[in-house]
Amino acid sequence: MRTSKRERLLEEGAKLFLKKGYDRTTMKDLGKAVGVQAAAIYYHFKSKNDLLEQIDEESFRRFRETILDPAREIKDPEERIKFFIRNRLTYQLELGKKALLVESISPRNVKSRKDRDRDVIHFLRDTLRELAQSRGLEDFVNPTVAAFSLHYVVSQTYKWYKPKGPLNSTQLADQIIRLFFLGFPGELTTAR
Amino acid sequence: MRTSKRERLLEEGAKLFLKKGYDRTTMKDLGKAVGVQAAAIYYHFKSKNDLLEQIDEESFRRFRETILDPAREIKDPEERIKFFIRNRLTYQLELGKKALLVESISPRNVKSRKDRDRDVIHFLRDTLRELAQSRGLEDFVNPTVAAFSLHYVVSQTYKWYKPKGPLNSTQLADQIIRLFFLGFPGELTTAR
Repeated sequence: MRTSKRERLLEEGAKLFLKKGYDRTTMKDLGKAVGVQAAAIYYHFKSKNDLLEQIDEESFRRFRETILDPAREIKDPEERIKFFIRNRLTYQLELGKKALLVESISPRNVKSRKDRDRDVIHFLRDTLRELAQSRGLEDFVNPTVAAFSLHYVVSQTYKWYKPKGPLNSTQLADQIIRLFFLGFPGELTTAR
Repeated sequence: MRTSKRERLLEEGAKLFLKKGYDRTTMKDLGKAVGVQAAAIYYHFKSKNDLLEQIDEESFRRFRETILDPAREIKDPEERIKFFIRNRLTYQLELGKKALLVESISPRNVKSRKDRDRDVIHFLRDTLRELAQSRGLEDFVNPTVAAFSLHYVVSQTYKWYKPKGPLNSTQLADQIIRLFFLGFPGELTTAR
């Protein structure tokens, strides 16, 4: 079936790019891995770069459907941020090695990535503004700085977090939520 | 002079890797850019990967000398963290495009990178523990989570921060410092 071959090409493509590097992977390698002629791949993908773009798109589509869209349904802005942190982390850690692929590839090869990152940043920034207004906060942190900071804190966890370490992923999410809302001291009343 | 040719090779190598990508750059390209035979490059660098490692090392040496070592001289742990944030940001933003190089290259090509990141993380984690103790904080955020979070918040700024935008780099540093010590609400007393 056409769909299933396309899916296998996406899957094997991601694996090969990750293993050999994008530049070093050829369509011939991919054909070999999936058991088709290189020429047959061009039925599904215009070029190696098209394949890469589509791997990236698939990944973002899942992200949007499981995190961004459901988050937008949540009325309370603080809960919306917490939902985002928890689910973005789970998504990130499940992706595991695949996240490395998306990251390891030079941005010049995935042109649409910037637009997608912008969607996430706008979602976070707008939610933070709404949160500040609804709480009557007057001296809050610049929402753009806070949005980018939160985005990178969460999206880089796969680089260091060890699932078998002292914190499980729920505890990791809780620590990041506290850091983001209360700062490192983690309490509202401090000796500062 | 030998030193100066080595430096020019490091400089032009960084530029080429950035422009063409590491995989696509050949020693011949580099020789052309510096005006020497490819063979002459091997007098200074064992391989393309050796050149890359040394570019990375040079960059970390500067980082250590201008940020990590001076920070360690600061007695107060909170001031030490603030010094780190301010100077790491300046360094990051000055590096500008070159930071992209180091980031864009697959970690498998720069084996020593992990050891260096670990140095930074340990510095932050230990300083945060010291801070918590000296303030008598009891319910603070896990210092490892806080250390990695801060590391990524600061080291990813070059990807989004625009020096001509609404915040100058001092203001950016102040916002990150507030976010880290007080959380997004940015104040000790909130309506939460």
